[in-house]
Amino acid sequence: MNVGFIGLGLMGRPLALHLAAAGHTLHLWARRPASLEPFKDVAAHAHTSAAEVARHSEVVITMVADAPDVRDVTLGDDGIAAGAKKGLIVVDMSTINPNAAREIGAALAAKGIEFLDAPVSGGQVGAINATLTIMVGGKPEVFEKVKPLFEKMGKSITLIGGSGAGQVAKACNQILTGVGILAVAEAFALAEKSGVDPARVREALLGGFAYSRILENHGQRMLDRNFKPGFKAWMHQKDLRIVMEEAHRMGLMLPSSAATAQLFNALVGSGLGEDDSIASLKLLEKLGGIE
Amino acid sequence: MNVGFIGLGLMGRPLALHLAAAGHTLHLWARRPASLEPFKDVAAHAHTSAAEVARHSEVVITMVADAPDVRDVTLGDDGIAAGAKKGLIVVDMSTINPNAAREIGAALAAKGIEFLDAPVSGGQVGAINATLTIMVGGKPEVFEKVKPLFEKMGKSITLIGGSGAGQVAKACNQILTGVGILAVAEAFALAEKSGVDPARVREALLGGFAYSRILENHGQRMLDRNFKPGFKAWMHQKDLRIVMEEAHRMGLMLPSSAATAQLFNALVGSGLGEDDSIASLKLLEKLGGIE
Repeated sequence: MNVGFIGLGLMGRPLALHLAAAGHTLHLWARRPASLEPFKDVAAHAHTSAAEVARHSEVVITMVADAPDVRDVTLGDDGIAAGAKKGLIVVDMSTINPNAAREIGAALAAKGIEFLDAPVSGGQVGAINATLTIMVGGKPEVFEKVKPLFEKMGKSITLIGGSGAGQVAKACNQILTGVGILAVAEAFALAEKSGVDPARVREALLGGFAYSRILENHGQRMLDRNFKPGFKAWMHQKDLRIVMEEAHRMGLMLPSSAATAQLFNALVGSGLGEDDSIASLKLLEKLGGIE
Repeated sequence: MNVGFIGLGLMGRPLALHLAAAGHTLHLWARRPASLEPFKDVAAHAHTSAAEVARHSEVVITMVADAPDVRDVTLGDDGIAAGAKKGLIVVDMSTINPNAAREIGAALAAKGIEFLDAPVSGGQVGAINATLTIMVGGKPEVFEKVKPLFEKMGKSITLIGGSGAGQVAKACNQILTGVGILAVAEAFALAEKSGVDPARVREALLGGFAYSRILENHGQRMLDRNFKPGFKAWMHQKDLRIVMEEAHRMGLMLPSSAATAQLFNALVGSGLGEDDSIASLKLLEKLGGIE
């Protein structure tokens, strides 16, 4: 299949290479020529615009930073829509606001272009190992057409619902992981400040209802003082911004998400944004006077 | 062994019966004579005061509501300390403030009485099946003496640290479960308000880092609209009060716990206190105008 891929960063590059390895022909466009380097030895054509990519592709995948970038690359000047043949499928794998995804989907539909929102979780390791969780919103028949591509990039692939539903599921994921990491950090800070070994607390609690993959994995990394990302705090901050934007738009009270979003603001503000999200423990320790 | 047991409620009764079944002789005192009924057919002596219970016991276990009750039954008029032989071990299995536990332990130590704080998690079902998680604070040599009794009541038994450390671990557990339940409720409310099926979101997220026993079990009960306790919201509210008391006493910022404690205040205030903690979903739905 001729597959366009736009956004060849830490996540996009390994995903595009999986598709090439599976025998697909890639059509690429990148702002920085260096991004095309890793594709020298595979079936890949470099183009001069997103519109040119679209002109040669049946499916175009985008994996960029945020909603304005997706809007730009799909609907902007020389964007995908400008070069699309009728029936083109655009798959956005970026994490953006669900409502923005719905609006972009609707604008593309008006031009006869199909759209799926398909954000992922599992990070760079999941992208490299093709073990991502992919959460998809869109039409079932479009999902079925793209599924063989998803299967080269991820392990758990779910059509959640209509347009935007993939982004909603991703927002839910970021609530559970963001709040979950902060809750573990708070429990550990309480133990430390009380003179109790958080390692023994973690060990005792892993067997009960407090068990979570975050207590197990992120909790161990907190004990190891390994704050290397993983998933950077500023990216989690952005995803919690999306959650709070949606909560505000719809009139929904999300108290633990709101408190967590504020803590992530403070993480970025205090210079810990490039650390992993578990650096929330460091900040609580600092504010609690814990050595 | 002669074992005193004070506090024969939903949790205490099955635990005391496990000890009797293991061949121990119980010494009981209860405010309400009806509480002694289930012990008619086992080796159990009823006494007229906690002091009398202590006079006949090597170990006295207490399982009552809160710190003032523990203080009363241990150090009050006709309390355990008034009847204790030197070397008596008092084991408090109630959930109380860690600092209050340390103070009670110190007051008993001044009278030559040993003390362990040993709160539990696992609820009434765990008590009946003797599968509780028991988190213990106190001296290792005292812990070893009581361990055979703990093993008749629980499955996972951990000496966390010195006096109060069991209560600290329990406070950590209540952070992780309280915040964890609210985070799942918030994710589900966001999905519902967005017109997305929370069951599909849960299914997609169970395979990733968002996995928690709470997403699996409590999440399923939320989908089933089964708000029957389980663990009552007003009890979780009390345990989060303890967390916030300690945070305040020590000067520790715990943002997600604080937001969760507020939501639990609202649960009790709005008449949902007798429901399970997962009724937090009902409250978010109500406040978000979700039918």
